[in-house]
Amino acid sequence: MSRPKPLSGFPEFLPAQRIVEQLVLASLAQTFELHGFGSIETRALEPMAQLARKGEIDKEIYVVRRLQAERHGAGSAADELGLHFDLTVPFARYVLENSGHLNFPFRRYQIQKVWRGERPQEGRYREFAQADIDVVGQDTLAAHHDVEVARVILEALERLHTDFGVPPVLMRVNNRRLAEGFYRGLGIDDHLAVLQRVDKLDKIGPDAVRALLTGELGLSDEVAGRCLELATISAPDSSFVDRVRSLGITHPLLDEGLDQLAAVVDAGVAAAPGRIVADLKIARGLDYYTGTVYETELAGFEHLGSICSGGRYDSLASDGRTSYPGVGLSIGVTRILVPLLAKGTLTASREVPSCVLVAVDSEETRREADVVAARLRARGIPTEVAPRADRFGKQIRYADRRGIPFVWFSSGEVKDIRTGEQVPADPDVWEPPAEDLRPGVQGS
Amino acid sequence: MSRPKPLSGFPEFLPAQRIVEQLVLASLAQTFELHGFGSIETRALEPMAQLARKGEIDKEIYVVRRLQAERHGAGSAADELGLHFDLTVPFARYVLENSGHLNFPFRRYQIQKVWRGERPQEGRYREFAQADIDVVGQDTLAAHHDVEVARVILEALERLHTDFGVPPVLMRVNNRRLAEGFYRGLGIDDHLAVLQRVDKLDKIGPDAVRALLTGELGLSDEVAGRCLELATISAPDSSFVDRVRSLGITHPLLDEGLDQLAAVVDAGVAAAPGRIVADLKIARGLDYYTGTVYETELAGFEHLGSICSGGRYDSLASDGRTSYPGVGLSIGVTRILVPLLAKGTLTASREVPSCVLVAVDSEETRREADVVAARLRARGIPTEVAPRADRFGKQIRYADRRGIPFVWFSSGEVKDIRTGEQVPADPDVWEPPAEDLRPGVQGS
Repeated sequence: MSRPKPLSGFPEFLPAQRIVEQLVLASLAQTFELHGFGSIETRALEPMAQLARKGEIDKEIYVVRRLQAERHGAGSAADELGLHFDLTVPFARYVLENSGHLNFPFRRYQIQKVWRGERPQEGRYREFAQADIDVVGQDTLAAHHDVEVARVILEALERLHTDFGVPPVLMRVNNRRLAEGFYRGLGIDDHLAVLQRVDKLDKIGPDAVRALLTGELGLSDEVAGRCLELATISAPDSSFVDRVRSLGITHPLLDEGLDQLAAVVDAGVAAAPGRIVADLKIARGLDYYTGTVYETELAGFEHLGSICSGGRYDSLASDGRTSYPGVGLSIGVTRILVPLLAKGTLTASREVPSCVLVAVDSEETRREADVVAARLRARGIPTEVAPRADRFGKQIRYADRRGIPFVWFSSGEVKDIRTGEQVPADPDVWEPPAEDLRPGVQGS
Repeated sequence: MSRPKPLSGFPEFLPAQRIVEQLVLASLAQTFELHGFGSIETRALEPMAQLARKGEIDKEIYVVRRLQAERHGAGSAADELGLHFDLTVPFARYVLENSGHLNFPFRRYQIQKVWRGERPQEGRYREFAQADIDVVGQDTLAAHHDVEVARVILEALERLHTDFGVPPVLMRVNNRRLAEGFYRGLGIDDHLAVLQRVDKLDKIGPDAVRALLTGELGLSDEVAGRCLELATISAPDSSFVDRVRSLGITHPLLDEGLDQLAAVVDAGVAAAPGRIVADLKIARGLDYYTGTVYETELAGFEHLGSICSGGRYDSLASDGRTSYPGVGLSIGVTRILVPLLAKGTLTASREVPSCVLVAVDSEETRREADVVAARLRARGIPTEVAPRADRFGKQIRYADRRGIPFVWFSSGEVKDIRTGEQVPADPDVWEPPAEDLRPGVQGS
């Protein structure tokens, strides 16, 4: 077989890059668990009928069939399976399927690959990892969970920044009730039609949006102007409330939305100062979000688009009798890591877990090296034994090439190969410096 | 939508079961890393041409197509993708693709889901997790790596036994060179034909195997008898060597095989006494293994078949100029966990990560509860805040239902809800008992 070529859109990591990914995923999981979110995993395949419920996305689905079934033309469309394209659809299915065994409000995180048959480009992959958190209630879900998920995610992303040097983020939040109440207070019935056009503000500019609102929707110039004024409000704190109030519109939904959004922003500022803004033009698609909406930019990588998005659903799932409202956010882990690894912004301190290489004098004495290694491992020190009884210079080079910091000799001495310092040591006592015990991530 | 039903063959875990799976996977990864094995992940999809190379397995492959491509009849067979059915084929491809960026011998572990379109039954799933370790060399790979991978896996499985109560294992090992050398020493050319028939010993019994050897292969009764004598040898230590020698056959390959197998068994006995036997009838398929072969039974669950298998390949991969010999083992994690979780052999101590629930007096003072929770989390204590300011009895029941051991009250007291003991505590100082900090696994 000749050398295989990578598949476009299916990024894979070399061992040192994978170490960075492992540490990033472990850090995210740790923050989620500190906040009491438990892990679940769902199967990769869902019935096509389930995946196709959101009409717009079906072009991106990968259909899956057993090779034998296909050859025999068996299997009806109802049996067809597809790879999940996000973690929300399978989570909603999991909640419905297991509702009798779950305690609500149910708080879960989920870190898995998803697949989309999109055209690959920077920040868009066909296979990529997402890290989602959601809180889902039975029939009701209090608004303070909208605050909570923002706080957890900001804390998780801030920790990636401080611990690993991932660039800082800016989370933009808005609230659908706020916009709906404002439009209704202006006497507009079809609030989604307005939202849909205002959502184009960044792309086509205020004049074109105004033309759409007055032309397509027949709004007066004054009403269209008010809609644009609302959309241009943004603030790094709850001062946006007074600015909205000063526009003079009143509606119960507007009050509710303002309260909810202010609570999210205040808590976000407290959790991670400077990382959150209220931005009243954010819409995040039109279909399913019904309250808070979130999107997030990575500083210096704004061209990637949002690396973490989500919102509130009044009905994440429903079985007809019970509805399951939810709120959550999804971090695009692969979307963040691939560019940062490619640019060398993040690097691992070594490419193997090993902290120590035990040198081997001769194949006859390999067993003695094994014993030393076992004694180090018994105290939690990742250790490998040299694969060949080469001359020591070559064995040191073996360690150096992988970034293994210490080489242990049968003389009972250990050498820090970075400094050259070599000291007598007892495998039942010796400890490496804490920062050398496991590989770390260096941000640049 | 009505309540969805599970898909047969695609097991999913409830939150408490998932905690067991997380702890088992983390334990395996930790043992692998202690021995210097680094993690990689490969994409879930491979070109069909790659997956179909082993002819016999193609019936089990899931073919994957973009829905749009399918509708337009586009895409040639050469572009076709399938879900990987093991982690060996993708690893071999990864090694070839990245050989210029890897340091050899390359030691990796890989924990991922794989997919097979088989008929589901106990121990056979359509989606399941495997945990593989392999060592792969460039052109050569020393025999001590056959010893090493057995030792690492035995240590990993023994740790699941002692830490979590997973039943103990019995690893059966054999060596293809040993058998080939023995058959050649008997004057048999087509050693694979003999092996193929001897492999049926457990299924059809010695008389039927003897009939196949004499009938189909035309061996003399005496030669067939010798082949059967070899196959019935098994021993919990290297005493099998003398028993083989006593059969009076000599051949260089036999010597090599005996040495290699004795080294594996001796090291296995040292690493995990009583968990390994030399069993000279083990074959593990015929195609690719060329030296040591391993299979493993779980005590009390022998009907599941082998839960951990592998062997030595002289050529795991080759690009025509360079070949990559390898040796490795694959643990069927899902195959082990699904029956143990179903039987209640393994249970988690709670169903959420939270160690503490901070009670809320009223929605007006929720922020104070948030502050207490943040102070506990700052010291690594997983904490959640009660979702509703219910009466305390109800908040305690919320904790109890999830197995959260401690409830914190605004009075500055913390209650162990298992004992009812309630004591004053400072959120900047209080520590839970170490065993309560995170959920654990209880074996029965």
